[in-house]
Amino acid sequence: MRRRPPVPAAARAILARDRLALARLITKVENRDHGVAPVLQALYPHTGRAAVIGLTGPLGVGKSSLVNSLLQLLRKAGKRVGVIGVDPSSPFSGGSVLGDRIRIDRDPADTGIFFRSMASRGHPGGLAAATREVVRLLDAFGMEVVLLETAGTGQVDVEIGAVASTNVVVLVPHLGDEVQSLKAGLFEIADVFCVNKCDLPGADGAARYLAELVGLTPRSDAWRPRVVQASTVLGTGIDELWAAVEAHEAYLRTSGSFEKGNRTRLEAEVLELYRERILAGAVAQVEGSPELRRLLDEVEARRLDPRAAADSLYERNHARRRPRS
Amino acid sequence: MRRRPPVPAAARAILARDRLALARLITKVENRDHGVAPVLQALYPHTGRAAVIGLTGPLGVGKSSLVNSLLQLLRKAGKRVGVIGVDPSSPFSGGSVLGDRIRIDRDPADTGIFFRSMASRGHPGGLAAATREVVRLLDAFGMEVVLLETAGTGQVDVEIGAVASTNVVVLVPHLGDEVQSLKAGLFEIADVFCVNKCDLPGADGAARYLAELVGLTPRSDAWRPRVVQASTVLGTGIDELWAAVEAHEAYLRTSGSFEKGNRTRLEAEVLELYRERILAGAVAQVEGSPELRRLLDEVEARRLDPRAAADSLYERNHARRRPRS
Repeated sequence: MRRRPPVPAAARAILARDRLALARLITKVENRDHGVAPVLQALYPHTGRAAVIGLTGPLGVGKSSLVNSLLQLLRKAGKRVGVIGVDPSSPFSGGSVLGDRIRIDRDPADTGIFFRSMASRGHPGGLAAATREVVRLLDAFGMEVVLLETAGTGQVDVEIGAVASTNVVVLVPHLGDEVQSLKAGLFEIADVFCVNKCDLPGADGAARYLAELVGLTPRSDAWRPRVVQASTVLGTGIDELWAAVEAHEAYLRTSGSFEKGNRTRLEAEVLELYRERILAGAVAQVEGSPELRRLLDEVEARRLDPRAAADSLYERNHARRRPRS
Repeated sequence: MRRRPPVPAAARAILARDRLALARLITKVENRDHGVAPVLQALYPHTGRAAVIGLTGPLGVGKSSLVNSLLQLLRKAGKRVGVIGVDPSSPFSGGSVLGDRIRIDRDPADTGIFFRSMASRGHPGGLAAATREVVRLLDAFGMEVVLLETAGTGQVDVEIGAVASTNVVVLVPHLGDEVQSLKAGLFEIADVFCVNKCDLPGADGAARYLAELVGLTPRSDAWRPRVVQASTVLGTGIDELWAAVEAHEAYLRTSGSFEKGNRTRLEAEVLELYRERILAGAVAQVEGSPELRRLLDEVEARRLDPRAAADSLYERNHARRRPRS
């Protein structure tokens, strides 16, 4: 059952820390190119070492600057760091809606950093699947920490948050009414809150408010989310932020929560890949077919409703080939 | 092939403009309750009359106030109007991330308005499918215009935008750098741009800038997006906004683009429902199975990679029951 095929050259290149090979493989993973399957298979035993840390929060709270400050801190500590910036994207242009906004001060000669911006292209399901595999490539490449920055626009953050073992939600002292309400969705994924731009007035109040909310929010585990304040302008709080992240990672390891979370993440990934596999063929098979054309004629003439048309496609192309439903 | 079952009571209630029946059916559609299929089927021949207008744009540009102003205008003109507010949501709480932010000044006795806020819950694919069906319910109910307001957070707007025949993208004179870059994704779906809050300085410049961008952006049709200015505070520009929407709707009808767009929308809907149908059973079948548990043990031990596990699930549960791949 466990085939051990020869290790593909691209996998050997990743283990040898070939940056160009890494960039190329990430592009293939993003494009859901099935050809990377043997490479991922060969690399899989070499993964599972990197700490995967998510950072999210509304637009304008300074997530990118914070990622930048964390990068400097981690590099000084000798850690190799991968950064993935995940943005929602336009399916029309294939481009990023928010643009490549992360400006990272990096020494081009520093091989201990690898930065990649990902566009979501199609559906968020596929984005989470692709992000998991890109994390795994960075992990096999030898990155000890992978920072996942998401754009803070809701659903995508929550899905990508599920890829990380620790999630930092970044806020600022004074959010407008509208942005403030975003917190509701981000609240549940936060293991650490960071009140960024704490040089602005109101930071203490915001931190107290968050700490109170933390006390009121039930969790499925015994971790109590920490609230830290930081200012990338003053250069303060970055150590405290990382200490809080490390405390959560330590909690995960000692409480057994890491294994449980890891199992949940792997299950989500396998089921997602299973769905992807099922759909890949099914839609291609009917798209552009005379059968679909005929059904759409009926739907357009309002003699058949869309659900009945979908059922008809299902019955003819799918259901009857399967002995039990 | 075309069964004509008796018209269900719920469908008759919709045609009789029973608001409570409408609210209940919308909830069922949102929950993807398969029991609504015969109701939707019976109502389908009574649909296709409503103009479906999307309004989107970044947070804080005043979309809700604009929807409110359009509502007043349309009601004065004697039009029956449905409003759907679509927000991203947290999969944990099932609640809305952005909250129910639309404040509509409406006369409770006015039966010519129906307002509904929708949470996305699961995946955006399902959200578009549900939104299409809710639009159809409002259409069958007799609403002549359906306004679809989305939260302006990227991907969801584009997906929901595909449900509407005319899309208005709302902006303000001065957007911050970060929000400004959001325009890239929203630009491609815009048939009309509205520079809202035009009482603020810079509105003329913003409108000129947009008009220039419009001239530079290729489209698949001959429509040139209009740029209008509005202020809900001053009460100006609302007529012009609606005139621009009507001009686009008229263009669609006279150019034959409406039929083409409608066909594309119906095709997307049928394929989406087909996907939904295929996946419904497939994942439930393997979730919690001893087979999945065993595979996850192997993945956890890094003896099998996630893709190979998904392939194995596919081979055993799906592929071998189908004579041709």
